[in-house]
Amino acid sequence: MAASSDHPSESAASQGISRSLARYVVATRFDELPAAVRREAQRSLLNWMGVAVGGSRHRTIEIALAAIKPFVGAPQATIFGRAERLDIMHAALINGISSHVFDFDDTDLTTAVHPSAPVLPVLLALAEQRGMSGRDFVTAMVLGFEVQCRIARAVQPQLGAVGWHPTGAVGVFGAAIATAKVLGLDEARLIHTIGLAATQPVGVREMFGSMTKSFHPGRAAQNGLLAAVLAERGYTSSLAGIEAKRGWANVVSSRHNLEVITDGLGQSYEILRNTYKPFACGLVVHPVIDGCIELRNAHNLEVELIEKVDLDVNPQVLELTAKKKPVTGLEGKFSVYCVAALAIVAGRAGEAEFADTMVRNPVIVELRDRVTATADPRVGKDQARVRIQLKDGRVLEHFVEHAVGSLQKPMSDAALEGKFLDLAEGIMPAAQARRLIELCKVVDTLEDVGEIGRAGAVS
Amino acid sequence: MAASSDHPSESAASQGISRSLARYVVATRFDELPAAVRREAQRSLLNWMGVAVGGSRHRTIEIALAAIKPFVGAPQATIFGRAERLDIMHAALINGISSHVFDFDDTDLTTAVHPSAPVLPVLLALAEQRGMSGRDFVTAMVLGFEVQCRIARAVQPQLGAVGWHPTGAVGVFGAAIATAKVLGLDEARLIHTIGLAATQPVGVREMFGSMTKSFHPGRAAQNGLLAAVLAERGYTSSLAGIEAKRGWANVVSSRHNLEVITDGLGQSYEILRNTYKPFACGLVVHPVIDGCIELRNAHNLEVELIEKVDLDVNPQVLELTAKKKPVTGLEGKFSVYCVAALAIVAGRAGEAEFADTMVRNPVIVELRDRVTATADPRVGKDQARVRIQLKDGRVLEHFVEHAVGSLQKPMSDAALEGKFLDLAEGIMPAAQARRLIELCKVVDTLEDVGEIGRAGAVS
Repeated sequence: MAASSDHPSESAASQGISRSLARYVVATRFDELPAAVRREAQRSLLNWMGVAVGGSRHRTIEIALAAIKPFVGAPQATIFGRAERLDIMHAALINGISSHVFDFDDTDLTTAVHPSAPVLPVLLALAEQRGMSGRDFVTAMVLGFEVQCRIARAVQPQLGAVGWHPTGAVGVFGAAIATAKVLGLDEARLIHTIGLAATQPVGVREMFGSMTKSFHPGRAAQNGLLAAVLAERGYTSSLAGIEAKRGWANVVSSRHNLEVITDGLGQSYEILRNTYKPFACGLVVHPVIDGCIELRNAHNLEVELIEKVDLDVNPQVLELTAKKKPVTGLEGKFSVYCVAALAIVAGRAGEAEFADTMVRNPVIVELRDRVTATADPRVGKDQARVRIQLKDGRVLEHFVEHAVGSLQKPMSDAALEGKFLDLAEGIMPAAQARRLIELCKVVDTLEDVGEIGRAGAVS
Repeated sequence: MAASSDHPSESAASQGISRSLARYVVATRFDELPAAVRREAQRSLLNWMGVAVGGSRHRTIEIALAAIKPFVGAPQATIFGRAERLDIMHAALINGISSHVFDFDDTDLTTAVHPSAPVLPVLLALAEQRGMSGRDFVTAMVLGFEVQCRIARAVQPQLGAVGWHPTGAVGVFGAAIATAKVLGLDEARLIHTIGLAATQPVGVREMFGSMTKSFHPGRAAQNGLLAAVLAERGYTSSLAGIEAKRGWANVVSSRHNLEVITDGLGQSYEILRNTYKPFACGLVVHPVIDGCIELRNAHNLEVELIEKVDLDVNPQVLELTAKKKPVTGLEGKFSVYCVAALAIVAGRAGEAEFADTMVRNPVIVELRDRVTATADPRVGKDQARVRIQLKDGRVLEHFVEHAVGSLQKPMSDAALEGKFLDLAEGIMPAAQARRLIELCKVVDTLEDVGEIGRAGAVS
């Protein structure tokens, strides 16, 4: 592995990256995928589905649907959690926005990429349009994850420092590769697919905090899909779209280490590093929530017994979530004080706990104002120390070594199902939600993954 | 005007650029546009239409049409020069590709932006879908040109040096602004339109030489159109998409001078600096072609009388077009020797002269091999000296001060019409081509510009 470079990489090792990726994608077969990889694909799908269904009634989606209505084509694919069926290109956009609208989707922690959001909307739409076996679906999904995360590792953290939203800037490769694999493109067409994706990065970080953030994975999904269908017909592009002097990597990031894109390709799987959020807010406060829930459950804590709550947190927590008096649910997500109070009172922190009414609830507000937080550089990013002093003088303390949802302490399958059911509540009947869960859990055995799309529509 | 900066611009003067642009766009009315501006809009439209019609049967278009066919929506707008009618989003893509597939479209020489290619496909499609007066069309077109060229001036030449294709990276703003003006968006929605455009730059230079180059203005057209229709419905974005720390300008270019975007806004018009190519090849060899045609016509030159041809050219000519033995038409465009021979023999250099058969024609080849070119730094970029030595010992010499098609020696209206007729030949009947010319020439008086779309379809 070569050292990072400030200059356009033209070293021998970085030549032919697009070609090497194309060869790998063409050659990879389902039977080669380790059982753990197949299992993580199912878990990623289940997590994504819950988040997309949950986000499907957000105002952002209503607006986007109204805007594109005059242009949509044949009803080819489901908008999960809704009645509309759109052509696959627009279904990819809308389901891509749903994926990310709650900031509750999966995360590759090394690169800050949300790998499902650009890939799964495209694959699920194609499955409904063309039919697709579960084996083909999982293979394409794993490859889409693999390529986008490897490319992200080559350019992060500089990509984000420049101002790109990594999920939009590399997600286009994930969607393109997944589509190309499903279409069965040959090596030459795969290289052109990569080139067409390379010319369409999406998303600057200035858009965070607006509806445009969740537009990024949606548009990346479309861009990748378009790249592959153009290349399928013979549309030509560069043979070195990623690595050329004026190709993607040098244009989006002044520092990179392109060798990591192909180092050990096929010997490891990025999807095994995928993580899922148990709580509907930024990862930075997850250790605090985890610790509060632990103490609450271990001691059957009643809020009226609590004198005060003291937190030792990683310094980043106070940089990002130090809002003292949040008023809206969104503001509540940026208040470590509010988040701790919600976790102790509710014993959970799903999207429902971040309703405006919860954040303004007098019980929450009263406890929130008795929470203090101290920055401690010895506390890691996925750690927190929670001390709860009771009115009777006792002090309960818990140190979170690794927050739930981290790679070291992943969400259990049961927790993922619980997250799904929470998100689907009020959007689809419980029986339908259960059926969708079951389909996701056996996706690799399905004869036709289009079944998932049909099962995810709500009339 | 402040000096260029290496750092994210956060000076007072650069604050509120997106808002200032939005205000300007909302406030501008057709009646304010000087006659020269309206006239140049007509000329730009006419030039664009010829190029788009001419490009409409290119293999690139056939491939793109086949690829998108499964997704297209209602038949809302014409593909110029063809029978297909597509939804406006896909019509914008395809007409955008046609615009640029010959590299024969207009150029803002200061920034290397091709301003019509992303803007006119969107406006003409909207005109067919919604109906649009010629006054509204011209106003939106002028504003689309204005904003994209000003933004380009702020980031060039660094934008291209980084590796962006300027037409794709700023064209999205042109398409977005033109759409927003036609939709009558208010200031707030216009600011969000700019933000949604800012998050969707397209196109890296590595794609030059492949079909993906002409994809860039096509996708920029779509991205801009999508930005405006989303904002119309209330989709939110940044209020400072261009100028914020992690907004468009800082992400795409490390050096810029954002003040030029708003300096003297409304007091000058970028469209007055638009130029049109008389010859179907790179601008760099236009002075040579111009000089050769001048001498040929002035002396009724017969090729068999010529001993040899000596050219003094700007050094860039030999850097870019020094191919000695071109075999294909495309290679011929990159051979100053071939180009000179074609100009002398044919007296013109349209797309037809760059057919493979012409480049391989023995008469051309024989003359081509007697052309020499010498780099001379005293010869400007739009200059050339042509010396033709005849077999009878006479030497004919002509120095081109400014090549035809430059700002100083623009193409005449008659030459633009001739270019149009050449490009339309074999694609539509001459009578239809003449009618399309007449409509373009009076566009600002049309009650409904949709008429142009209907007149440009070929069954």
